[in-house]
Amino acid sequence: MDVNGRHYRTIWVKKGDSKVIQIIDQRKLPHEFVIVDLKTVDDFNSAIKDMLVRGAPLIGATAAYGIYVAALDDDSDASLKKAAEKLISSRPTAIDLKWAVEKQLAALKNSKNRIKTAFETANKIAEDYVEMCRLIGIHGVGIIEAISKKKKGAAVNILTHCNAGWLATVDYGTATAPIYEAFNRKIDIHVWVDETRPWNQGAKLTAWELGKHGVPSTLIADNAGGHLMQHGMVDMCIVGSDRTTRTGDVANKIGTYLKALAAKDNNIPFYVALPSSTFDWKIKDGVKDIQIEERGSDEVKYIEGLHEGKKRKVLIAPEETNVKNYSFDVTPARLVTGLITERGVCRANEKSILNLFPEKK
Amino acid sequence: MDVNGRHYRTIWVKKGDSKVIQIIDQRKLPHEFVIVDLKTVDDFNSAIKDMLVRGAPLIGATAAYGIYVAALDDDSDASLKKAAEKLISSRPTAIDLKWAVEKQLAALKNSKNRIKTAFETANKIAEDYVEMCRLIGIHGVGIIEAISKKKKGAAVNILTHCNAGWLATVDYGTATAPIYEAFNRKIDIHVWVDETRPWNQGAKLTAWELGKHGVPSTLIADNAGGHLMQHGMVDMCIVGSDRTTRTGDVANKIGTYLKALAAKDNNIPFYVALPSSTFDWKIKDGVKDIQIEERGSDEVKYIEGLHEGKKRKVLIAPEETNVKNYSFDVTPARLVTGLITERGVCRANEKSILNLFPEKK
Repeated sequence: MDVNGRHYRTIWVKKGDSKVIQIIDQRKLPHEFVIVDLKTVDDFNSAIKDMLVRGAPLIGATAAYGIYVAALDDDSDASLKKAAEKLISSRPTAIDLKWAVEKQLAALKNSKNRIKTAFETANKIAEDYVEMCRLIGIHGVGIIEAISKKKKGAAVNILTHCNAGWLATVDYGTATAPIYEAFNRKIDIHVWVDETRPWNQGAKLTAWELGKHGVPSTLIADNAGGHLMQHGMVDMCIVGSDRTTRTGDVANKIGTYLKALAAKDNNIPFYVALPSSTFDWKIKDGVKDIQIEERGSDEVKYIEGLHEGKKRKVLIAPEETNVKNYSFDVTPARLVTGLITERGVCRANEKSILNLFPEKK
Repeated sequence: MDVNGRHYRTIWVKKGDSKVIQIIDQRKLPHEFVIVDLKTVDDFNSAIKDMLVRGAPLIGATAAYGIYVAALDDDSDASLKKAAEKLISSRPTAIDLKWAVEKQLAALKNSKNRIKTAFETANKIAEDYVEMCRLIGIHGVGIIEAISKKKKGAAVNILTHCNAGWLATVDYGTATAPIYEAFNRKIDIHVWVDETRPWNQGAKLTAWELGKHGVPSTLIADNAGGHLMQHGMVDMCIVGSDRTTRTGDVANKIGTYLKALAAKDNNIPFYVALPSSTFDWKIKDGVKDIQIEERGSDEVKYIEGLHEGKKRKVLIAPEETNVKNYSFDVTPARLVTGLITERGVCRANEKSILNLFPEKK
């Protein structure tokens, strides 16, 4: 989408040097807009692990280019296997990562020109993500349109958690794809942006990208959503998904489950937008079967921000305090109104999902 | 409770100078422990408004001493009325503030020695708060004991939101009173402390005071509680209340409602500990009838912490972002397992509440 009037994607091949992949260092947002070159598997591993890139589809695309860069260096089976293992280990919860790496390895298995194949496969994966997100927008915008009609054109208030925006994908975003599509169709909308502690993807990224594209939005503490919903200030929720069971349970950024409970309690539709690569077709019970990543305590105890033009990391709790930092939670399907996928909208249950994806029956 | 092995209250008359009231500047916690002198009504107004003191009972006690200090300066009806208005306006949602000021004014109305009466009344209000909190601890500890017994002595995991600790009262706390009582009785307990954005009372105050007193605790992002509850890591919740309807609806720090929903969804008891001064006997529907305070956007966009030994306020969102900052939300009585008051524990409904407070029938 647009930044200062110019169109960007989140990952691309460097102009004039196809051995280098470029990304936006999302850790620097919203205060700085910095482009980073990735040249080695270690660069890719760090980019994913240290969250220069984040979001299921963008992690997938990045991992695919990581295998391409590994092949540039050494395209032997052993080298590719080592690269694949390193990349997969960088974020264990991200199902797209594993999916993209395996797709690359399958394509390379019998290739005569592994570098060329890896490059084409990575490009294809990136383009497919863009198209998937575009279609999510096309399928999801109808939901917003219907609410707008019901409200006789008054602003549709949409709450979102974390960043499932274009920054989390290659373009358009997942949760934001219907939002951008509605905005482009000139439907009056307004987005409540959860700041999304502890990493504050909402405050740093979603507020930034919606603002840069011109979509009206308001930043709130994660704690505020329930109050807004009780008072009729939210018409619908849309969030993304890091992993979705075949029964419609959704693992997404920690705190999503709390918003889904509040939406249910106030009769507000709660949608999850996801590319189908996010489905983990093997599991049925998200709460039991999805392993939840734990991250370091410093993400809770310290926070980085701008002080007199300089980035500073400040301590916001007693230094000696114990911390637990879970990255995701699971929203049971019973709290989800519908899933917005690239194939259309379905209800969050196995039957409805398999109607859209009959090949998974 | 204890700080570095020494017992403190949150407000007291200065030793050797009864015209000066001393408080702990809670904005400086957890990094600095600073005691502040309050000498004028403006000092008291600022102390409440700028949150040097916070928490319903402590605000009540502070306001009572504020009227005393006003009387020291000028004990005419006009002066006291002006002081009362100024103090009440400093935090519109705090019912204890109004209650304490009105109690002072009633005591002073026909007093022959207004300064002496105001001093005694303020001391009495402070002592009554201490006794109320002590009793809340005595009544509430049974709930923790019963869970401990059921778990055969394994640690009872208690989640709390915001700071309803001794720092929010004059001593003991409300939500923490049963916790400190359980700790003193050597029941194995562990407290999950919500950081409580945007003002982070949990990270700054609850984590600090539990740590200083030796109670095992773990700090978490507000988003984490639902996940913990889904996975059996929370045995009960206890929170405080800023205002409680006669039907048991509870206005407490923003985000409380979300935790109550998660507790309900996971069959976990959700208790609210409150001194009866927190009841607003006139209202029945908390969501409709309790006015929710809005605070400035900078509390969400900026956060203060320690950087290389110095306090720094850092910007954590795009500067131009819109913000809404609601301070409280209302948890409907249907989500509350019980109210722990100084008279005992009751269910969160009008009948059960009035059984404990028959004079309000």
